[in-house]
Amino acid sequence: MSLLKELKTSQDIKNLTRSELELLAVEIRTRIIDVVSKRGGHLASSLGTVELTIAIHRVFDLPKDTLIWDVGHQSYAHKLLSDRKDRFDTLRAYKGISGFAKMSESPYDGFTVGHSSTSISAGLGVTVGKCLSQNKSKVVSIIGDGSLTAGIAFEALNQTGDLKKDLIVILNDNEMSISPNVGALSSYLSRTFSASYLQQMRKGFGEFLKSVPKIGTDIYKFAKKSEDSFKTFVTPGMLFEAFDFNYFGPINGHNLNHLIDILENIKSSNDPVLLHVTTKKGKGYEPAEKNPVYFHGVGSFDIKTGNGIKKEKKISTYTEVFGSTMIDLAKNNKKIVAVTAAMPEGTGLTDFAELYPERFFDVGIAEQHAVTFAAGLATQGLKPVVAIYSTFLQRAYDQILHDVCIESHGVVFAIDRGGIVGEDGPTHHGLFDYAYLRSIPNITIMAPKDENELARMLVTAIEHNGPVSIRYPRGKGVGVEIDKDIQPIVIGKGELLKDGNDVLLIAVGNSVVESNKALEELKEKNISCALINARFIKPLDKVLILKMAEQIGKVITIEDHVLDGGFGSAVLELFADNNLSNVTTKRIGIKNCFVEHGPQEILKAEYGIDSSAICKAVEEFVQSEKSE
Amino acid sequence: MSLLKELKTSQDIKNLTRSELELLAVEIRTRIIDVVSKRGGHLASSLGTVELTIAIHRVFDLPKDTLIWDVGHQSYAHKLLSDRKDRFDTLRAYKGISGFAKMSESPYDGFTVGHSSTSISAGLGVTVGKCLSQNKSKVVSIIGDGSLTAGIAFEALNQTGDLKKDLIVILNDNEMSISPNVGALSSYLSRTFSASYLQQMRKGFGEFLKSVPKIGTDIYKFAKKSEDSFKTFVTPGMLFEAFDFNYFGPINGHNLNHLIDILENIKSSNDPVLLHVTTKKGKGYEPAEKNPVYFHGVGSFDIKTGNGIKKEKKISTYTEVFGSTMIDLAKNNKKIVAVTAAMPEGTGLTDFAELYPERFFDVGIAEQHAVTFAAGLATQGLKPVVAIYSTFLQRAYDQILHDVCIESHGVVFAIDRGGIVGEDGPTHHGLFDYAYLRSIPNITIMAPKDENELARMLVTAIEHNGPVSIRYPRGKGVGVEIDKDIQPIVIGKGELLKDGNDVLLIAVGNSVVESNKALEELKEKNISCALINARFIKPLDKVLILKMAEQIGKVITIEDHVLDGGFGSAVLELFADNNLSNVTTKRIGIKNCFVEHGPQEILKAEYGIDSSAICKAVEEFVQSEKSE
Repeated sequence: MSLLKELKTSQDIKNLTRSELELLAVEIRTRIIDVVSKRGGHLASSLGTVELTIAIHRVFDLPKDTLIWDVGHQSYAHKLLSDRKDRFDTLRAYKGISGFAKMSESPYDGFTVGHSSTSISAGLGVTVGKCLSQNKSKVVSIIGDGSLTAGIAFEALNQTGDLKKDLIVILNDNEMSISPNVGALSSYLSRTFSASYLQQMRKGFGEFLKSVPKIGTDIYKFAKKSEDSFKTFVTPGMLFEAFDFNYFGPINGHNLNHLIDILENIKSSNDPVLLHVTTKKGKGYEPAEKNPVYFHGVGSFDIKTGNGIKKEKKISTYTEVFGSTMIDLAKNNKKIVAVTAAMPEGTGLTDFAELYPERFFDVGIAEQHAVTFAAGLATQGLKPVVAIYSTFLQRAYDQILHDVCIESHGVVFAIDRGGIVGEDGPTHHGLFDYAYLRSIPNITIMAPKDENELARMLVTAIEHNGPVSIRYPRGKGVGVEIDKDIQPIVIGKGELLKDGNDVLLIAVGNSVVESNKALEELKEKNISCALINARFIKPLDKVLILKMAEQIGKVITIEDHVLDGGFGSAVLELFADNNLSNVTTKRIGIKNCFVEHGPQEILKAEYGIDSSAICKAVEEFVQSEKSE
Repeated sequence: MSLLKELKTSQDIKNLTRSELELLAVEIRTRIIDVVSKRGGHLASSLGTVELTIAIHRVFDLPKDTLIWDVGHQSYAHKLLSDRKDRFDTLRAYKGISGFAKMSESPYDGFTVGHSSTSISAGLGVTVGKCLSQNKSKVVSIIGDGSLTAGIAFEALNQTGDLKKDLIVILNDNEMSISPNVGALSSYLSRTFSASYLQQMRKGFGEFLKSVPKIGTDIYKFAKKSEDSFKTFVTPGMLFEAFDFNYFGPINGHNLNHLIDILENIKSSNDPVLLHVTTKKGKGYEPAEKNPVYFHGVGSFDIKTGNGIKKEKKISTYTEVFGSTMIDLAKNNKKIVAVTAAMPEGTGLTDFAELYPERFFDVGIAEQHAVTFAAGLATQGLKPVVAIYSTFLQRAYDQILHDVCIESHGVVFAIDRGGIVGEDGPTHHGLFDYAYLRSIPNITIMAPKDENELARMLVTAIEHNGPVSIRYPRGKGVGVEIDKDIQPIVIGKGELLKDGNDVLLIAVGNSVVESNKALEELKEKNISCALINARFIKPLDKVLILKMAEQIGKVITIEDHVLDGGFGSAVLELFADNNLSNVTTKRIGIKNCFVEHGPQEILKAEYGIDSSAICKAVEEFVQSEKSE
C-alpha cells in the first residue's frame, strides 16, 4: 500500500498516525529520487526538507495558511503533498510542473520564487495584507542559511521585528547554500554545533565569571551545568532576538515528532517567530548526503550508484572555457582576481579558487556586495572579474551603474547563463542583460559567437581600462579549438562572417550559431544572406554595420534576449542616428513575455529565435520585396 | 586668526594642539553653515560629523590611508580639511564641487558615493586590494545607522568578518537616517541609550541570576555595579561580534579627545573593527539640532532664524500632488497602502502616514525589501503604491522583475525625481528608469505632462490589474488646476496636443513642457510642428503615433532620459515593427554619459534636452529637407 497514493488532498495528512508519517517520508524520498534521477533537478535540498514539509502540512491549514518557500528548489515534497502528485513526473519538463514554487501553478504556493532570499519580505507582505483584511490565517516563510547572506533577507528581518506581526520564519540550516557557506554569519550559525567553539565561549564566559570576586567560581560551575541557559547566550538566538524575533531552536529537522510539536506551539504566537531547524542536504540518499554540492542541481543519474548518466560530451562548456582561461591569464597577470556570489562551481571557478586562493573571493549570495567590493578592488589597481549568472546579476544593477560605471572602474563582468537557460524557467533565463546594461554609460558589452571568442573577449576585457561585460550562454560551446596564444579583439569591431546580397543578418552571441545554421538552409533556397557577428552590443561596429546595411537595404537583427531595448533596438538607434534611408529592419528576439521552462532547443523554437525562425523571417522579407 | 585658513595641507592638522582642534571645529561649523545657508545642501549630517572628521584627519595619514564616506552628504568638513577649502563656496554649484564624496574630484575621497550603504563593501575591496599589493596603509569606512538597514551593508559585514582583514568601520549613529529610523535594528541600536530598556534588560538578567541557587543575588549586585561588563552583554556589540568584528563603543562623537584616543588605539588593529560613535545631527546649530529632518537637505536659509528663504512658490510640486492625491484616493479605497524606503517626507507621504498609519509602511533604506514586501501585499488583494526616487529604485530592479512582474502583481511604482534632479548630480539623476523598466514584460510605464495628469495616472494605475510605474520629475508642476473629479486615462493612449505639417514631436513626461515651449518659438519662425504627449512609454499609442508619423514623415522624440534603450528607442522599435517607410526619426535625450550636478535648467540646456535643443533639431530637420 502506498500512503502517498492514498492521500487525496493535503488535508488527509492530518489523519495519519505519527508512524505513518514516517513511512510517508520514506515514500516521498523514493518518489523524488526516482523522478529526479530521470529528469534532473534540485535533489539534495529537496531531500533535506521532507520531514519539515510533512510537519508543516500536518500542522498548518494549507492553502488557507500561506507557505512561502525561498528559491523553491527544495519544494518537491511540498509539490507531492499539495496538488501536483500526479504531475510530479513532468517536473521541469516542457509544459510540465516547475522546479520552483509558483503561484500560477498552484494555490499552495504562497509566492513565486526562483531567486534567493525573498521569502521573508514576501511573507511579511502577505502577513500584513492578511492583517489588514482581517484574515486570521497564518504565514510561514522558509529560508535557508545560505539565503540569509543576501541583503534583502536582512532588510526583511529588520522590518518584521519592527512591525511585530505574527510571521513565522523557519530557518532551514543545512550549513550550506549551494556550496559550503561563506561569511561570518555562516560561521556564527554553525558555532552552535561546534563543540570547540562552545568550549571556547564557555571558557571566555567562565573567565569573566571567575573574575567576579568571591562568587565567580560557583556560578561558573553552575553555568557549566546549566547548558540550556548558557546556550541562549551564545547561539544564533541572540542575533535574531536583536531583530525582535522570538527564537526557537535549533531543533533536528529530521525528527518529525519534534517538528510537529514545536510547530503546534509556535502556531499561536502573535509575534514574529524564528524557528531554527537543522537539516542535512541529500538526507536519506547516500550519494547525495556524501556529495551535496554535486546533487544540488543534478542531471539524470543512476539511482544505485548516484553516477550521472553521461550524455555525449567532449565539447567544453562556455563555463569551463571561462574557468580555464581565467587560470591561464591569472598565471602571468597577478592583478587578476575573481569574485563570485556563492557559485564557484556554477561559474567554473573552483580550479581558480584552488590555484589562487588569495585571489579568489566567494562573497556568498550577495551580488550587490560582490560588485561594489569589486569596484573597491579596482581602485587599488587590481582587475576583478565578477562571475555571476545573468539573472542573478539583476540584483546588482544599481551597483554596476553607481559604484562601477560612474567612475568607470575596470571591473569585468563574466555573465554566464545569458539567454534561455532551459529547465529553470522564467525566474532564471538571462534575457534582460543587454537592455539593463546598455543604457549605462561607460560600459562595454560583448557576447562571443563561440568558446574561443569568449577566451579572446576575456583577454580583451582584462586589457581594457573600464567596465566590461561578457555574456555567454549555458551549456556547451560549438566545439572549436581554443587558440594557444589567445589574442584580444578590437573593441567596437564586429566581423563579417559571410557576404551576400539579399538580406543582411546581424547576430550577436549565441544567435550567431543559429544564424549560421540558417545560412545553410537559405543557401539551398538560393537566398544569399550576409552575416555580421556583431561581437559588441556597445559600442556597435558603426562602420561595418552601416556600410553593409546601406549596401543590402534589408536587415534582420538576431539575439537571444528580449526585443524591448535589446541588441536590435541598439541597431535601430544606430540607423536612426545616421539617417540611414532605404533600410528596412526586422528584429528577431523574445517578444515581450516571460519564457517558460523546458529544454533550450524547444524553447528557442517556441519563442522564435532559432534557425527556422531566422529562415522564415528571411524568406518573408524576400517575398515581400517581390510582391511589392 | 583663522585656523582653517592657515591649514595648508591635511597634514598640518597634526601640529595643532587639542584645544586648537576644538577651535577648528567651531570654524568649520561656521563655514559650513555660512555656505549651506546660501547654496543649500545637506547641513544636519555634515554638522554632526565635524569632530569625527577632524579626529580622522588627525590620526590617519590621508590620502595614503583611505577614507570612505557612506552617501557622502556628511563629508563637508572633510572637503574643507582636505583640498577643497578654497572652492568650498562652489558647493553643489554648476561646475563647482560635488555635494558628495567623489574620487574624480579629490584623491582624499576614497570612493565615489551618493546612494547609501556602499562604504563597507567598497572599503573591504580597498582593504583586500591594498593587502594583495603589499600596501600597509589603512582603510576607514564610515556608515550611518540609517544606512545599516540596507541589505548591501549586511552583505559586506558578513564578508568582512569572514576575511578578517583590518578594515575599520565607524558607525556614525545619530539615531536617524534622514527621518527618524525605522526597523528592529534601529531600536536595537538605540536600546543602548534608553535607560528604561537597560533597566528592563538588567531586570531580566538579574532574574536569571537570582534564579541561580545561593549565589545569584550576589552576582546580581555585582553586575549592577559593573556597568561596563554588563553593557557588552546587551549593547550592539553582540550584533557586530556575531559578524566577527571587534566592537568598540559607543563613544561620544563630539568629544574630540576621546575620538582621537580611541582612533589611535584602533589604528593598529589587524582585525575588522567596528567603532560605534554617537553624534547629533545638526550639532552646533540650534535650528538644525531642533529640526534635523528639515535640515537634512535644505535650500538657502537665514542663518539667524534658520528660516528658509522663500522663493516664489504657489505652484505645487509633483511630490505634493502625489501626496494629496494618495490621501484623496485612500479615503474611498481601503485597499490602497503606501510603501516608502526611508523617504516619507521626500516622497510626499507624511500626511498619508498620519491619516492612515496602519496603511503606511516605511521600511527603512531597503528598496529591495520594499518592492518584494509590496508584492506580498498585492497577493492579498491590496493595492500597494511604492514611492521611491528613480535613482534609488535601481536597487530593486531584480525585485521589480522577479517578484512583481513575473506574476504581474498589481503594484504601483510612484517614481519621483525622474529625469535631471539638479544639484545632487550623477549619483542622483533619474535618467535610466524607462530603459531598465521597459524591457520587463507585463509592466505599464507612464509619465505625466503636468501635475493634473499625474493625479489621473495615479487613478489609472490603481484601477489597473497589473504592475504600473508613473515617473515624474523633481520640483514644481506647471501650475495647472487639479480636477475635482479625477478621471483615469485610457491605458496605451497618448494625446495629440497640436497638429502640424513639418515635423512631428513625440514627447513624454516633463519633456512635453519643453516641447510646448519650443512650439511657441517655432511658430514665430513659421515652422508648423505637431506634438504628441505620449503619456505611455509602454505600451506606446501605436495607432496615434503611426498615423501621425506616416502623415508627417519627420519625427523627433524627446525625453529627459538617456537615449540608449529609452523612450525614443521604443518609438524606433514601433516604426521598425510596422514597416514604416519614409519616416525619418531623430531622438532628443541624454547622450550616453553621466550628467554632472547643477541647476536643472542649466543642465537641461547643457545636455541638450531643453526647448532650445528641440528648436534647433527641428530647424535642422527642416533645413536638411530643403537642401535635399
